[in-house]
Amino acid sequence: MALVDGGDLVVRAIKQEGVDAIFTLCGGHVQAIYDACLDENVRVIDVRHEQAAGHAAEGWSRATRRCGVAVVTAGPGVTDCVTAIANAYQNRSPMLVIGGRSPINRFEMGALQEMDHVEFLRPITKWARCVYDTKRIPEYIAAAFRHALSGRYGPVFLEIPSDTLFTKVEEAEVYFPQRYRPEGHVYPDPNVVKEAARLIAGAERPLVMAGSQVYWREAHEELRDLIERIHAPVYLNAMGRGSIHQEHPLFFSRSRRNALGKADVAVIIGTPMDFRLAYGKRFGPETKTIQVDIDPMELGRNRDIDVRIEGSAKAVLRVLLGELEGYKPDHQEWTAGLRDEENKIKAQREEFMNSDAVPIHPLRLCKEMAEFVDENTVVVGDGGDIVNLAAQVLPVNYPGQWYDPGPMGTLGVGTGFSMALSTVYPKKRVLMVNGDGTFGLNGFEFDTFVRFDMPVVSVVGNDRQWGQISVGQKLMYGKERVIA
Amino acid sequence: MALVDGGDLVVRAIKQEGVDAIFTLCGGHVQAIYDACLDENVRVIDVRHEQAAGHAAEGWSRATRRCGVAVVTAGPGVTDCVTAIANAYQNRSPMLVIGGRSPINRFEMGALQEMDHVEFLRPITKWARCVYDTKRIPEYIAAAFRHALSGRYGPVFLEIPSDTLFTKVEEAEVYFPQRYRPEGHVYPDPNVVKEAARLIAGAERPLVMAGSQVYWREAHEELRDLIERIHAPVYLNAMGRGSIHQEHPLFFSRSRRNALGKADVAVIIGTPMDFRLAYGKRFGPETKTIQVDIDPMELGRNRDIDVRIEGSAKAVLRVLLGELEGYKPDHQEWTAGLRDEENKIKAQREEFMNSDAVPIHPLRLCKEMAEFVDENTVVVGDGGDIVNLAAQVLPVNYPGQWYDPGPMGTLGVGTGFSMALSTVYPKKRVLMVNGDGTFGLNGFEFDTFVRFDMPVVSVVGNDRQWGQISVGQKLMYGKERVIA
Amino acid sequence: MALVDGGDLVVRAIKQEGVDAIFTLCGGHVQAIYDACLDENVRVIDVRHEQAAGHAAEGWSRATRRCGVAVVTAGPGVTDCVTAIANAYQNRSPMLVIGGRSPINRFEMGALQEMDHVEFLRPITKWARCVYDTKRIPEYIAAAFRHALSGRYGPVFLEIPSDTLFTKVEEAEVYFPQRYRPEGHVYPDPNVVKEAARLIAGAERPLVMAGSQVYWREAHEELRDLIERIHAPVYLNAMGRGSIHQEHPLFFSRSRRNALGKADVAVIIGTPMDFRLAYGKRFGPETKTIQVDIDPMELGRNRDIDVRIEGSAKAVLRVLLGELEGYKPDHQEWTAGLRDEENKIKAQREEFMNSDAVPIHPLRLCKEMAEFVDENTVVVGDGGDIVNLAAQVLPVNYPGQWYDPGPMGTLGVGTGFSMALSTVYPKKRVLMVNGDGTFGLNGFEFDTFVRFDMPVVSVVGNDRQWGQISVGQKLMYGKERVIA
Amino acid sequence: MALVDGGDLVVRAIKQEGVDAIFTLCGGHVQAIYDACLDENVRVIDVRHEQAAGHAAEGWSRATRRCGVAVVTAGPGVTDCVTAIANAYQNRSPMLVIGGRSPINRFEMGALQEMDHVEFLRPITKWARCVYDTKRIPEYIAAAFRHALSGRYGPVFLEIPSDTLFTKVEEAEVYFPQRYRPEGHVYPDPNVVKEAARLIAGAERPLVMAGSQVYWREAHEELRDLIERIHAPVYLNAMGRGSIHQEHPLFFSRSRRNALGKADVAVIIGTPMDFRLAYGKRFGPETKTIQVDIDPMELGRNRDIDVRIEGSAKAVLRVLLGELEGYKPDHQEWTAGLRDEENKIKAQREEFMNSDAVPIHPLRLCKEMAEFVDENTVVVGDGGDIVNLAAQVLPVNYPGQWYDPGPMGTLGVGTGFSMALSTVYPKKRVLMVNGDGTFGLNGFEFDTFVRFDMPVVSVVGNDRQWGQISVGQKLMYGKERVIA
Repeated sequence: MALVDGGDLVVRAIKQEGVDAIFTLCGGHVQAIYDACLDENVRVIDVRHEQAAGHAAEGWSRATRRCGVAVVTAGPGVTDCVTAIANAYQNRSPMLVIGGRSPINRFEMGALQEMDHVEFLRPITKWARCVYDTKRIPEYIAAAFRHALSGRYGPVFLEIPSDTLFTKVEEAEVYFPQRYRPEGHVYPDPNVVKEAARLIAGAERPLVMAGSQVYWREAHEELRDLIERIHAPVYLNAMGRGSIHQEHPLFFSRSRRNALGKADVAVIIGTPMDFRLAYGKRFGPETKTIQVDIDPMELGRNRDIDVRIEGSAKAVLRVLLGELEGYKPDHQEWTAGLRDEENKIKAQREEFMNSDAVPIHPLRLCKEMAEFVDENTVVVGDGGDIVNLAAQVLPVNYPGQWYDPGPMGTLGVGTGFSMALSTVYPKKRVLMVNGDGTFGLNGFEFDTFVRFDMPVVSVVGNDRQWGQISVGQKLMYGKERVIA
Repeated sequence: MALVDGGDLVVRAIKQEGVDAIFTLCGGHVQAIYDACLDENVRVIDVRHEQAAGHAAEGWSRATRRCGVAVVTAGPGVTDCVTAIANAYQNRSPMLVIGGRSPINRFEMGALQEMDHVEFLRPITKWARCVYDTKRIPEYIAAAFRHALSGRYGPVFLEIPSDTLFTKVEEAEVYFPQRYRPEGHVYPDPNVVKEAARLIAGAERPLVMAGSQVYWREAHEELRDLIERIHAPVYLNAMGRGSIHQEHPLFFSRSRRNALGKADVAVIIGTPMDFRLAYGKRFGPETKTIQVDIDPMELGRNRDIDVRIEGSAKAVLRVLLGELEGYKPDHQEWTAGLRDEENKIKAQREEFMNSDAVPIHPLRLCKEMAEFVDENTVVVGDGGDIVNLAAQVLPVNYPGQWYDPGPMGTLGVGTGFSMALSTVYPKKRVLMVNGDGTFGLNGFEFDTFVRFDMPVVSVVGNDRQWGQISVGQKLMYGKERVIA
Repeated sequence: MALVDGGDLVVRAIKQEGVDAIFTLCGGHVQAIYDACLDENVRVIDVRHEQAAGHAAEGWSRATRRCGVAVVTAGPGVTDCVTAIANAYQNRSPMLVIGGRSPINRFEMGALQEMDHVEFLRPITKWARCVYDTKRIPEYIAAAFRHALSGRYGPVFLEIPSDTLFTKVEEAEVYFPQRYRPEGHVYPDPNVVKEAARLIAGAERPLVMAGSQVYWREAHEELRDLIERIHAPVYLNAMGRGSIHQEHPLFFSRSRRNALGKADVAVIIGTPMDFRLAYGKRFGPETKTIQVDIDPMELGRNRDIDVRIEGSAKAVLRVLLGELEGYKPDHQEWTAGLRDEENKIKAQREEFMNSDAVPIHPLRLCKEMAEFVDENTVVVGDGGDIVNLAAQVLPVNYPGQWYDPGPMGTLGVGTGFSMALSTVYPKKRVLMVNGDGTFGLNGFEFDTFVRFDMPVVSVVGNDRQWGQISVGQKLMYGKERVIA
Repeated sequence: MALVDGGDLVVRAIKQEGVDAIFTLCGGHVQAIYDACLDENVRVIDVRHEQAAGHAAEGWSRATRRCGVAVVTAGPGVTDCVTAIANAYQNRSPMLVIGGRSPINRFEMGALQEMDHVEFLRPITKWARCVYDTKRIPEYIAAAFRHALSGRYGPVFLEIPSDTLFTKVEEAEVYFPQRYRPEGHVYPDPNVVKEAARLIAGAERPLVMAGSQVYWREAHEELRDLIERIHAPVYLNAMGRGSIHQEHPLFFSRSRRNALGKADVAVIIGTPMDFRLAYGKRFGPETKTIQVDIDPMELGRNRDIDVRIEGSAKAVLRVLLGELEGYKPDHQEWTAGLRDEENKIKAQREEFMNSDAVPIHPLRLCKEMAEFVDENTVVVGDGGDIVNLAAQVLPVNYPGQWYDPGPMGTLGVGTGFSMALSTVYPKKRVLMVNGDGTFGLNGFEFDTFVRFDMPVVSVVGNDRQWGQISVGQKLMYGKERVIA
């Protein structure tokens, strides 16, 4: 019979979920995990600040559609990771953070770096627990993945006290779960989908607004089929970007505000009615709405929704396409009008894109970057104004080509995301677009890029201020009172 | 234009959800709600202790399959309700508790009964919030129902400070949500259901174990169709009781332990693998398992599950029946063996049921109660040993005929549940089975029965001790050391 | 060498703190504690509902000035106790609640009555922890008493999973703390006290307002010395009641509102500036204030305070008396005016007290009770209007003669408090004053009185309504709309 | 009459507490505070990452013995600050963090960077609240300082939603607290101090161990008087370092382990019995102990303590010196033995300090730094091995000359602490000792040093690894398996 320690159990359990690399900053409370990584051939990417390890774990999840893992030591190791956990929570990204802790028999005594991490992480995780029994580590890891990867995705946290982690147990006595998570997709109620199809079939100015869940559930092909079937313009946001090739005749972006206000039927797929859609008011007051979300809590939030469909984006689109079999509408006038608007905006923008003025206009900078971005390039947008512009200019033509922080607007995610992308796609080029402010937040991680030979390219749009803030300050308080 | 206060907004919003009665104990912080109930013709049932109001709200939910409402005053009003909230949480019952609070402009000052209730209720609710803005009350109530009645059901809590509640606002300025929750059923992935059908088709000793979700999603007819289609014995637990008539040839109960251990394929529908199923070990180590649950967190918990199906019980059964179209197995040997076992146990039991011994044998008491229970009687089981026996003897022949506390094992739920049943079914007879211990917990509510003319019948199985505990004490410490 | 289990360790540790009785409702998760109580000769008082066990533990603390103990089983045992815990928290009463829990190796599996009680009790306790190691039980109990009985007193909670509790360990290997809490009193800064003395020495209309901390720190004699030394009227609230004999010429009560408004210097000792003092506005805007509190968080809360003294009431009074050595003021005019006002109110009241009208006037009822109350009687006030009146009429002449719920206004504390008083003072008479509403909340505990031979007398002032609430309702909504 | 907005109220309230600089990273949710800072002449130091703002606020508190302030924007602004808050919490340092939030009327709607920060900060702050009413901002700020600066010091958090912050109110209608916190020192019980004096008077090998509270309460002169009065060696830790000049004949450091084990009476002042004192086991089993702490929760924690004294270090020392008036012991033998041991260790160390070996021995590096440190230099130690060595070699001769992270062992505090020191002491030299690992954590803040003209000197002891961790790894797993 064989003895294993908690570190072995951790690594075997995460490996079973397809995890081949962890992100960490070296710490004594968790070193049994490193040793097991060596045994199990899991890469250990160590960073300069645990925040980057957290962002990298989220980035890894997003690039792989699996659940990335960060391993951090007790106390400041975990607290340094909080922003990354919160960002994943708001982003609904799966992520597992494993934190060390002082041994159980030192609880309450004032051990080095002793904290109850679970207590303060509960509000910003889907699930957070402490493991008190070495033999049950695989069960807890299984539960962690079950929570991270079911329903609305999100980050989970496991705290493992050092006695739990370093204790050796008899391998044969450990229950090691293997079939412990739901399979397949959540399907919609066919009667509700019929109602959606009926609305769509009656539309004159239909529109599709699609977001992150199209990416997570790999529904881009179904999305393309839908817009072609119903002849509707599509707008993408968040991780939905790239789901439709930008050259597709039904792909639109610059006319969004106008289009959403005018549509008579809007299909909103896997993106919440949050500030990015003016809490549902971006659509017109008369717009009939069909909302698809894996999370029932989003259905009808902030705005009455005519048809509310709970389900996986892919499954819903499949069933909806079935209902619309044979439907062949023509919305030429509607789409042509939008295309005109797009072209007008594009023409205005090109003036700046081709400008030779000094200092360089940011759109000119974006144009140069756009030429760099090919099918083998993934882009990380980590900044304010410069990223907003880049998002409008850079080509994003396949799912998972573009990474930005998401609704929490966390600046500084870029280095962590970039190292994740370099890990997952060693052969791709990684372009990181930064502002001068964002670059400062976690810029020290270039050291990690160097140590792990990750050829990330960062372009900094330097306006020597926090540009998005200074504008507001000038308006409110006058130019000479700006602190930015 | 018309002015409305927060009480009006609360009552209109809950009425929209079909709530025609609230359970409460009179308190000043919430009295605007009472006045609105009078205007809106919502019944106000006031009790002697807020715990009963909470249990009644859960009972009302269970009887109506909607979301019952308890309204309680600040401080002790809310804390008195905690057991009921926790019970609903463990039971996955929808329930809305509205709590008063001191006005916002007195926060932190030491107002009468001032507490931050949200803070301590978060861990035992699905969702708990404070409303800071009178105009947004309908939005918060809508969100409360959305959370209570989506996915895994559960209790929610809304705290309304008295200034928020008593302020008057212009009715026309209030956004009043109307279409804000998912519709229909969550459907399973058809490919996963196919896999389940394949397993079932190969079974020699199939078995169905069905629980509360069959009740909540009204899937009893589909359940009956399934057991008949696959010719499998069915065992019921929790609120699944009554889903199949006890005279149905495939209904079994007494042979459960044996059957579960021997089955080669088990279909577990809407009941968790918790202590009631020995954490999954009640099934044999070789039993192939198919688990159906609306809550993906339950799939594969505690035991590896061969086929894990996320979905509404009704939807899953529909799709599964479709897959099994034309399947016509014969498991006569298997079911006959179980029937033999059932008959043997029944015969042993009947000896006591017909005994004239004094003191009366509890089974004899149960037999007398059984004769009282007809189709027009609903039964509340609130006790230890006596309820365990009654559960085996009393006829429970339709969904919603039997009510017990659920997995939290909360004694004292009976009076609250009974008053809910009297409210929902004024023409039915309500039988409450109590032990002498449980009767004491909330027995004062007979006053409420009298005040509201609720003809509840309580039968107390009085063994003059906490019978379930004293047994264990005797075993561990010897007879003379029992404190029970 | 000897083996002991967790129950033995619990009971030995609480006994060391002078606990000779526990309050409980029988439950399996905690029965090892009962057995140890038998060995260690600690009384086990078992009740009908855990809420009463909680209130009794607080009552025991208040009667003994030590820290009472309630022992409750997992799940509903703990939740039933929440109101009592919250009440003690708002009252700043020490109290230890020990809760059972399912074994650690069943965490997360859905065990019977499994809950993480610590999580939801944290916000309403001073300290709440789970014990994971049998050998460390005495340390955790020691810490529990340290927290409950230091600084601002309050309730603490210890959760003991059943495997921790039932495991046997070698007695000699257990570290059993013995000298683990601060001793003596917290003394004030003498320079700050000098400043207070200076203010007092300049006063013309001084006044003392004293509350619960005078009781807890046994400072009633020092209080009497102070009012005599500075010739100031004294007003008492909360557990300060009884600190000064009502026949003392400087004892006042009915003139409180007027006196507080007129005083030029007020000494506020051990009572917070909460709603009972109109958040500090009960004192005049020009009143100079000296506030004494063991809890620095209360000093200057809600109102600017001229002299803010942190310290134990007894210690502060001692030092202050030293500073005022030889001071001999005369405030005859001031106190005589207040006495006139008191007499006038008293005369008005006596008319009703002597009335023979039917239905009986509540003041007449109070007068009859007043005649019953002698030095050997302790009084529990548990109600609304009737208790407010009784508080004005009944003699309360020594510390610890009067018990009411405190600032949380929890109705239903009476039966628990009464059983605690019967336990601590088997030879005293216990009078409980109830309303009809309050009586209903925990009235079933008369069964406990009977079982333990506790001759509690309850007088119910029955107005057949929630009197305090109905008044407000009538004012706001009109008579016919009262729900009370 | 004048209108003020929430920003004005914030800044006036913090200024009243002597705050003349805030640390921040620019964000829109909080910009009203910046504008008020300009009006009120409060410096705004903006950093590259909010973690540094948090560490700087703690550093400012430590340098000034007041309560420093960090202002951070909603969402990632607050989460980036979590490590600094947690560090202050474990360090018992006062600190106020003010966080922005989306407006109240957008709660629950998915606003940009919307989070309930209070919920997750509660466990790592002394007090955390949201302000819902512009007029009450000064009250909440007053309460924040009251909590931060009373009893056991610690960090507090105030969340101010943007509508609360940007709303303008009538200045005259705002209650602006001015006398709202305790004054002076907490004094000990003289009887308990007498007991301590009695023990000391009987000692043959007395010893004083003094920590951070000596610094916070400015008790260094009293400490020096005590050790001279009782002729005892003194050992210092944490912020106690510098309380006694290193040339003082009773100052010791290198002999600590031996001395603590051998002392017959130990006076422990203002430092917890945590891992740094081996949980109390660093003292001998027979050592009589006297413990002084402002926090009663520390008295008797982890080890039985013979005399447990609650009080301010300064007040306790004053009273104790009074009790020991005239006491004139001679412990020459005891102190001479310790001095011999110190000298021996010093001699061994000097060999390395004077070595010319390449690569440079770290002690040689420390010696060079030691020569740089004069009375006008403050030192920040932010690292592992190199800081441990520097702490033994660098002169630290007055209170507040040395800054390290404290018991949480947070690496990366250095840049924040250094900018605080440069702010408070613009004329002093700031030396920061780093390891190569720590330097990476927040090294980007050198940009802030440059922008604000802060001439901080950093010396990096570069061993090209996480030295403290790699040692353990090598021991456990062998050299070739080190990940550090």
